[in-house]
Amino acid sequence: MAPSASTNKRFLLAARPEGRAVVESDFKLDVAPVSAPGADQILLRTLFLSLDPYMRGRMSAARSYAAPVELGAVMTGEVVGEIVESRAPGFAAGDIVLAHSGWQEYAAQPAKYVERVDRSQLGDLPLSYLLGVLGMPGATAYFALDTIGRPRSGETVLISAAAGAVGQVAGQIAKLKGCRVIATAGAADKLAYVTQELGFDAGIDYKGKDAEALAAAIAAHAPAGLDVFFDNVGGVTHDAAMMNLALHARIIICGVISAYDRVGQPDIGTRWNRQLLVKRALMQGFLVSDHRARWPEFRMQMAAWLRQGRIRYREDIVDGIEAAPRAFMGLLAGANRGKMLVRVAA
Amino acid sequence: MAPSASTNKRFLLAARPEGRAVVESDFKLDVAPVSAPGADQILLRTLFLSLDPYMRGRMSAARSYAAPVELGAVMTGEVVGEIVESRAPGFAAGDIVLAHSGWQEYAAQPAKYVERVDRSQLGDLPLSYLLGVLGMPGATAYFALDTIGRPRSGETVLISAAAGAVGQVAGQIAKLKGCRVIATAGAADKLAYVTQELGFDAGIDYKGKDAEALAAAIAAHAPAGLDVFFDNVGGVTHDAAMMNLALHARIIICGVISAYDRVGQPDIGTRWNRQLLVKRALMQGFLVSDHRARWPEFRMQMAAWLRQGRIRYREDIVDGIEAAPRAFMGLLAGANRGKMLVRVAA
Repeated sequence: MAPSASTNKRFLLAARPEGRAVVESDFKLDVAPVSAPGADQILLRTLFLSLDPYMRGRMSAARSYAAPVELGAVMTGEVVGEIVESRAPGFAAGDIVLAHSGWQEYAAQPAKYVERVDRSQLGDLPLSYLLGVLGMPGATAYFALDTIGRPRSGETVLISAAAGAVGQVAGQIAKLKGCRVIATAGAADKLAYVTQELGFDAGIDYKGKDAEALAAAIAAHAPAGLDVFFDNVGGVTHDAAMMNLALHARIIICGVISAYDRVGQPDIGTRWNRQLLVKRALMQGFLVSDHRARWPEFRMQMAAWLRQGRIRYREDIVDGIEAAPRAFMGLLAGANRGKMLVRVAA
Repeated sequence: MAPSASTNKRFLLAARPEGRAVVESDFKLDVAPVSAPGADQILLRTLFLSLDPYMRGRMSAARSYAAPVELGAVMTGEVVGEIVESRAPGFAAGDIVLAHSGWQEYAAQPAKYVERVDRSQLGDLPLSYLLGVLGMPGATAYFALDTIGRPRSGETVLISAAAGAVGQVAGQIAKLKGCRVIATAGAADKLAYVTQELGFDAGIDYKGKDAEALAAAIAAHAPAGLDVFFDNVGGVTHDAAMMNLALHARIIICGVISAYDRVGQPDIGTRWNRQLLVKRALMQGFLVSDHRARWPEFRMQMAAWLRQGRIRYREDIVDGIEAAPRAFMGLLAGANRGKMLVRVAA
């Protein structure tokens, strides 16, 4: 199977959004020839590109858990692709692979950096799930709850960004464990989705609420306090949750999407030390790549849950690589409905 | 052995210091008759009264991990006492006991609320150590490191309020584990004590430094970051430490002495969420009473270390119950040099 085109549309990082929101001109659409694969490389055609909040961090020069994308380099991102040409033993044209080849239609990649997908593991489940519920966001929900949150039956769990790629899975796992699950999100239809479709117990719209009002809304749904707080956002929601901790609460610091545009400025943070002490709570940062060794276990469990209908999953797919910047800005603004993906090729 | 006096000097809580520092008039000296012990009670004469930062929390009406002291009630506090009269089986005059009988010279107490001391366990060690290195502060250092900090050989540990009752023990345990120990304190002689007498590796005077200056001083002594931060103070020191976390750092939230006078006001808190996430750090509140079941293990280990000279310990003892309020205010202001105690009777 040869490339259907000789050109490769791709997005380069054109400017760093430091202390401000991402704008479209931070990305530059570039058209380059399709690279030929070198020795021990494969050439892949991108089928799906995943758009994830962590990419906001890579656009910034601030030190984080991974190096920033260089100015002028292809924007980083995980993809599902199909091999169109292989110069690597054990890889063949037509194979489906996972790669970190970024925002582009084609990429030549060293074979050692790609993972070949065993389609028999997927069964009827769509390939795109490998970038979501069966990939990084799903593994994030699964391992953060397994290693930090440890929800027990009867406990109360608050999930922020509950309709997002991580939140929708985390809340459903907590329900499977017998917990009461409270969601926060920034739109009524997102809350309707997680409460009516996914079975979460209560939903709170954070928009227009300050920390005190949000804390009161949480308290109304969790009078005995929060045993687990799965935080994907930080900021005001974090503060409100910290005012509602149960004894021995576990707080998963998984994302700080609300703070990405405010690097170098203080987090909002009130009364945290005191609350952690009084409630003997545990607050821990989480990065899914620390748990790579256990992904086979995760994928097997999650695929089973999906096939059994015990976990449901929603995607928000836009078409064509050209749509990536706007879709990513929408993701950061909370406009997506489910896991954000770009279908780069059919 | 009968009481040597028929009157009992004691301090009552006269006013709550809300949003301000403690002042002497918050306590009222009261002289009452010595109570007679009821059935199953003992009458004790206070030998040593422990003064500890947690008492500041009990003076406030704000919800904490224990109920506040009622206005007009005797100030709370742990004591070592000698039984002068017993109406409880198994307790006899002359027995030494630990009790939570508060800031007073004599107290009738239900026998079930006091703990008789086996003096043979102490050997040559002073009775007052039962309120310090062999008591609550020592157990705090021991269990907080054992269950949260988990210092490993070669790691770097920062201890705030390093010359205090908890800090001096925590730092020495970390040294025994093979760590590099950095101290913060608010006076040159405190830092000289922990570095020259206790073997800590470096000392930083936090006074007159803002969070950025303190962070730079920490970075100079811990270029690879802090693996463990044992925080007894909160506030600016906490912020400065959070800017210096190593990957997978553990932060023990043990005390918030810097914030006690600011209840209801925000902690200073900058960039915490982001730092916890990026460093996959764990921050956990600690209360020593969660570990009561393991105190025998702790006392045996600590007494052995003391006898072997592997742990050293300094006390700051004032004489007479009348000295308690000023000594307590000094403790909150950092004026003490070692574990603060009142010798109520010889």
